[in-house]
Amino acid sequence: MIPSGIITLTTDFGSGPFPGIMKGVILGICPHARIVDIAHDVPAQDVWHAAVVVEQLVGYFPTGTVHVVVVDPGVGTKRRAIVVRTKREWFVAPDNGVLTRVLGPGVEVREVAESRYCLEEISNTFHGRDVFAPVAAHLAMGADMRDMGPVVDDPFVLPWPEVKRQGQWVEGEVVRVDPFGNLGTNIPAELVEKALGQWEGHVELVQEGRVLARGRLVPSYGWAEPGEVVGVRDSMNRLELAVNQGSMLRVLGLERSQARGLKVRAGPLEGG
Amino acid sequence: MIPSGIITLTTDFGSGPFPGIMKGVILGICPHARIVDIAHDVPAQDVWHAAVVVEQLVGYFPTGTVHVVVVDPGVGTKRRAIVVRTKREWFVAPDNGVLTRVLGPGVEVREVAESRYCLEEISNTFHGRDVFAPVAAHLAMGADMRDMGPVVDDPFVLPWPEVKRQGQWVEGEVVRVDPFGNLGTNIPAELVEKALGQWEGHVELVQEGRVLARGRLVPSYGWAEPGEVVGVRDSMNRLELAVNQGSMLRVLGLERSQARGLKVRAGPLEGG
Amino acid sequence: MIPSGIITLTTDFGSGPFPGIMKGVILGICPHARIVDIAHDVPAQDVWHAAVVVEQLVGYFPTGTVHVVVVDPGVGTKRRAIVVRTKREWFVAPDNGVLTRVLGPGVEVREVAESRYCLEEISNTFHGRDVFAPVAAHLAMGADMRDMGPVVDDPFVLPWPEVKRQGQWVEGEVVRVDPFGNLGTNIPAELVEKALGQWEGHVELVQEGRVLARGRLVPSYGWAEPGEVVGVRDSMNRLELAVNQGSMLRVLGLERSQARGLKVRAGPLEGG
Repeated sequence: MIPSGIITLTTDFGSGPFPGIMKGVILGICPHARIVDIAHDVPAQDVWHAAVVVEQLVGYFPTGTVHVVVVDPGVGTKRRAIVVRTKREWFVAPDNGVLTRVLGPGVEVREVAESRYCLEEISNTFHGRDVFAPVAAHLAMGADMRDMGPVVDDPFVLPWPEVKRQGQWVEGEVVRVDPFGNLGTNIPAELVEKALGQWEGHVELVQEGRVLARGRLVPSYGWAEPGEVVGVRDSMNRLELAVNQGSMLRVLGLERSQARGLKVRAGPLEGG
Repeated sequence: MIPSGIITLTTDFGSGPFPGIMKGVILGICPHARIVDIAHDVPAQDVWHAAVVVEQLVGYFPTGTVHVVVVDPGVGTKRRAIVVRTKREWFVAPDNGVLTRVLGPGVEVREVAESRYCLEEISNTFHGRDVFAPVAAHLAMGADMRDMGPVVDDPFVLPWPEVKRQGQWVEGEVVRVDPFGNLGTNIPAELVEKALGQWEGHVELVQEGRVLARGRLVPSYGWAEPGEVVGVRDSMNRLELAVNQGSMLRVLGLERSQARGLKVRAGPLEGG
Repeated sequence: MIPSGIITLTTDFGSGPFPGIMKGVILGICPHARIVDIAHDVPAQDVWHAAVVVEQLVGYFPTGTVHVVVVDPGVGTKRRAIVVRTKREWFVAPDNGVLTRVLGPGVEVREVAESRYCLEEISNTFHGRDVFAPVAAHLAMGADMRDMGPVVDDPFVLPWPEVKRQGQWVEGEVVRVDPFGNLGTNIPAELVEKALGQWEGHVELVQEGRVLARGRLVPSYGWAEPGEVVGVRDSMNRLELAVNQGSMLRVLGLERSQARGLKVRAGPLEGG
């Protein structure tokens, strides 16, 4: 795989100077790097959130892109730094689950053990600058990840919730809240369509058996009345719950962290 | 017009992963693109806000720049996607008014009808990624907008409020709130100067006949006492109301959306 | 010094269109510029905050980088615009203290007096666009700062608080609050280590004689229990106070501006 020279950054560093400093380090090692900010407002130390952001990137960048992900509550402890290579992309991150959705069969994982790919002085608090940025820049310059350290057989992976189908009903979970307050689920739209025969039906959000919101499946937000709860096929081809021209999160009075993990069900219109 | 290779992005996607994903798509089609973020914190679905942001860009980018604007409450419905060409720039956006301030005589508008300028799969919820980003990248690669679809004779345009002059008095409206809480109006500074003979006078903010704030015209913020209300010539050569070293918005206790549309009057000092 | 073509931007412009407009101006003058956002969320008109952000950049960008810093409450008044050249970098900023931490012996400072390095029309409110961006772009194109204006012998400098050592105790101040709510001090970690003989000891945060928080020195956040107050060596090799997996700022119930200037003491464990 030939590096594209593109390096993306996903962190929980907020909009302060830290991502900018990482860019300085990258450009010092790889002057032709084209650096793309993905998100720096991952909620502080929210590894799951980062994992779901990363999942959304896959396949939309040129082959040979390096993705850096730094959400790293364990910085300065013994947690490993890893490099991951999939069919078309590299990932550089702490080994704490942020790469959960790109790990799997056929994927190569190595520990960053060789300090020559890092800055000379490695702080205990800012590995984004001292480890992850320089490793990514070296990959973009053509460094071989096999020189960086030993194979990792047991990278840390977060459990991905199960999707259940029973007849015409499909049940899953909210895994993602987008900036509009829409709730992304782990339910493949195709599965819903298969269960129902078409994209027409009923959708509900459930908390401990209590239905918090009900709506119907529509092709897109604009097909409903303003304020109506709908289920749409999201940009990852999964079921998403939304309020047309509004924020589902605000309507429910929930925090982002409370919405994650709520049960979602889709079924026939009669089944409501 | 030769493409400059520069593509700017203005969206209401917040700082999540969506703008980053658009950049991946752009770089996949136009590897030499230089992508510039303008703003991704346009208030959700606030078409007017986007229109005023776009207006501020015009003329400050090299000829041949492509501006992408995605504030798109109608995504997934029948609203058109359009490409606009002015004397020196292209714009790509939904046809919902976000380009209001760049449309006009001598401007070419076409619908994006040819799907070969889009991603192969077009979702119902993320045309930023599937339509607007690839179209912009193709323009930056030299594609001819005349191949993209038919001429649009009736692009959607938002009404721009009127400015009235009566003797030494000029009246207009707040059209823009900047990040400092300053209130930008639609009143050309030149018109105020012409009415008053010079940049010296009185300014007031009015809500349904009630004066919310009064101040005087000064050359810039720093010419007043801290906390004083002033009228200055803003960066677009229009009248702006501000509080020196403070936020007009906060002083008034208003939300951004409440400030827009408030009446503003400038007149002689004696006229207060 | 040969320009690297890299230009960084640090402003208090928020995420609105202003930084993007500056980029348009830069690319119009220096088409090959690589522009890096450092931070645009410096609290409005907070010159000190900007000064500490700038300090963190030094040394991490390639030689010949131009850093633009626009936090400028005096825009439109007689405050000077300056260009500063250190051993490896240039800085362009208002002369109001934002460059405090890079000024010093061996550093060349000049006023921007020649308007040919600026845009033709200079507004009274947006020198980021009209002065600082074009000056930076001209520097990146190889312009000589000696042509830009006269030497400045007395650039404005903010006082940097003193660090005191008494036996095994070292006392300083909070000078920086990072996006995680950690409190950075002006105390060199080396000095603490020298006073204590090792990185083991006691740390406390003091407000007018009252101890607000107590903790111990640890190698990094993860070496403590969740919620524990710790002192760590920060990314600038200075003492930082933090709450493991939490925000010191939130735990104390302080605003960012209230935390700055609080006294911090480090000493032996027995001394608590």
